[in-house]
Amino acid sequence: MVNYLSRLQKLQEKMQRKQIDGFVVTQNVDIYYFTGTMQTGYLFIPAEGEAVFYVRRSIVRAQEESAVLVEELGSMRSFGERLKKQSPQLFEDGRSPILATEYDVLPVQVFERLRTAVPNANWTDGSLLVRETRMIKSPAEIAKIKEAAHVIDIAYEKAVNHVKEGMHEFELMSMIELTIRLNGHAGLMRMRGYNQELITGMVGSGAAAAMPTYFDGPAGGQGLSAAAPQSSSRKKIGQNEPVLVDIGCNIDGYVIDQTRTLVIGELSEELTRAYVVSERILRETEALLKPGTICEELYANALRIAREEGLADHFMGYGADQVKFLGHGIGLEIDELPVLAKGFTYPLEPGMVIAIEPKFTFPGVGVVGIEDSYAITESGFEKLTVSRDGITIVKP
Amino acid sequence: MVNYLSRLQKLQEKMQRKQIDGFVVTQNVDIYYFTGTMQTGYLFIPAEGEAVFYVRRSIVRAQEESAVLVEELGSMRSFGERLKKQSPQLFEDGRSPILATEYDVLPVQVFERLRTAVPNANWTDGSLLVRETRMIKSPAEIAKIKEAAHVIDIAYEKAVNHVKEGMHEFELMSMIELTIRLNGHAGLMRMRGYNQELITGMVGSGAAAAMPTYFDGPAGGQGLSAAAPQSSSRKKIGQNEPVLVDIGCNIDGYVIDQTRTLVIGELSEELTRAYVVSERILRETEALLKPGTICEELYANALRIAREEGLADHFMGYGADQVKFLGHGIGLEIDELPVLAKGFTYPLEPGMVIAIEPKFTFPGVGVVGIEDSYAITESGFEKLTVSRDGITIVKP
Repeated sequence: MVNYLSRLQKLQEKMQRKQIDGFVVTQNVDIYYFTGTMQTGYLFIPAEGEAVFYVRRSIVRAQEESAVLVEELGSMRSFGERLKKQSPQLFEDGRSPILATEYDVLPVQVFERLRTAVPNANWTDGSLLVRETRMIKSPAEIAKIKEAAHVIDIAYEKAVNHVKEGMHEFELMSMIELTIRLNGHAGLMRMRGYNQELITGMVGSGAAAAMPTYFDGPAGGQGLSAAAPQSSSRKKIGQNEPVLVDIGCNIDGYVIDQTRTLVIGELSEELTRAYVVSERILRETEALLKPGTICEELYANALRIAREEGLADHFMGYGADQVKFLGHGIGLEIDELPVLAKGFTYPLEPGMVIAIEPKFTFPGVGVVGIEDSYAITESGFEKLTVSRDGITIVKP
Repeated sequence: MVNYLSRLQKLQEKMQRKQIDGFVVTQNVDIYYFTGTMQTGYLFIPAEGEAVFYVRRSIVRAQEESAVLVEELGSMRSFGERLKKQSPQLFEDGRSPILATEYDVLPVQVFERLRTAVPNANWTDGSLLVRETRMIKSPAEIAKIKEAAHVIDIAYEKAVNHVKEGMHEFELMSMIELTIRLNGHAGLMRMRGYNQELITGMVGSGAAAAMPTYFDGPAGGQGLSAAAPQSSSRKKIGQNEPVLVDIGCNIDGYVIDQTRTLVIGELSEELTRAYVVSERILRETEALLKPGTICEELYANALRIAREEGLADHFMGYGADQVKFLGHGIGLEIDELPVLAKGFTYPLEPGMVIAIEPKFTFPGVGVVGIEDSYAITESGFEKLTVSRDGITIVKP
């Protein structure tokens, strides 16, 4: 069973260290993480004492699912009074409590409604506290991610068995999506960043995979149109070009992220060599995947190898569209902490789950690389993704 | 061809009427609407003069796709200086221009970065201006929505031909998703409201369709788990129970919304009667669908019919989970203006596109109803959805 109390306590400890008196959790994913329900409303967590989930809708479903005490939200105008009643000590003698909420996702309009409802509070950004709490996964969470990894492996093998020259990228993607959906995929993937969206991944072949992209990753794909400029396109998969299969799925909220490179026929020497370097980077990263390693060092080390191999210009995108990270946390969202990038000085800790994705982009030609997802353990790591590595070679 | 200049001019006219000096458009969908590209960055539209899209990523792709002048965003610190250079008259003599942005979707954190970058501006919420501009669709936009309607019809007919007793809801949903994806669906649907998400719709059978839901609609579905509590569930579709097939797809950014009710076997008299009332409401609403009709009157009229028929308690959900609208605008997002609900006093205008969805919920039993999408024309309406109406009866 999920220990929601321990999740709340971890956040409360962080709040106490930052002298935050209360946290108004607003985002659906964060609410689900702390309560077990994703109904809408505001979850109030005092720095000390019991949390209450004030539910807008559906109160019936929230009562069934929530591990935290549920009350009806009612009128927003009375929300401030409700908080005073719940935690009188925070407001006594005209005190202005310090309240946190998620500035990274909360729209200004909703925030202004909150500020009006609780006029005598001092607000502060608590995004990082929630994200850092969610960064360390429990065994139950890791088990869900492993389930998702298993589903993605089924989908990958099915794709390998069905890919044919002349098939449109989106056709192969459709087959992957069908397979994961029939195996329990929830039908959507979540990404936290503003304006970042996620399809279930992409099948990207040749030049289409190497298209520049707004997407915060090394290869976003061409997409079907400018109105959804990511994932698979109408391009036909050809012989002797790399096909990047970067896919995920969502099992009971938890996502996985995996990339494999396949080719119908064979890859050029240059691309084969770049692929081998991506595996070398992954193996050398694995050697450092243990508690205490500093996240940004993993990126620096990968970049060093790419440079050594003369591939720095192609590493994690090309030119102005290179991204400056090697991997990212996954969990309920695909862009969780920690990030393996400069400036992220978190030491690895047991319970972190990270997708590591060394890739090389050759404009006009394609993208090659590999991505596996790992849980950090006491002694090192557990690899969660299970698909076969190496370039997957399909006979023409 | 899309006339982006006319879109910008319409927003500029609204800005001038509200004495707004400039608009910083931040959201991916809004940026796409005004520029033709969905790359990331900030689109600055002065109340008079030319708009500039300051692109973070990908500049290459934005240059290819944008109808608006593109510049590299560069450092956020210099953004204020860039705006001053672009529109010096707004800042001259130490003036503090009034700048609008989309408070309904912009996260507080990003807003604070904007405020820091342009310190001497007075900010105001421009969400409604953008949403009202987007409310009136061009013939090219309506043509896209009709394409989506055609795809949904193909998917519906295929579902009808394949549905069988004992099939899981999510299996039928997977088939629908496969069909729309193979016919050009972008792989995601967009909803603007905070914490609102959209799968491609739902197949909801019997009691599962009638589950209370956070989703801002009359029937959200049970979903696969509490972590994605909407759309289809693992419930098996049975004989003689209503199956609500409420589905959409996204063609080049534009979504459609359609609901049909099917049954394997036959429906009870009570449910059949409720379905007939939903069609009566739709027909009586159609009779009023013409320029000049006030949006909220359509909801009031529908509610009056539901009351007359003794079905008010079941209309648009049940009990605490009833929603108080009859329909909603669709376009690039599924929750556009106008809304057919109390307080929405817009008169219908040519170019509005509205999904109208009278439905009746019977807890523990199921949901019946119909949803069609319409474009308002000079003389009345054009129905965009094309699927057969009536209860779809499938032989057991």
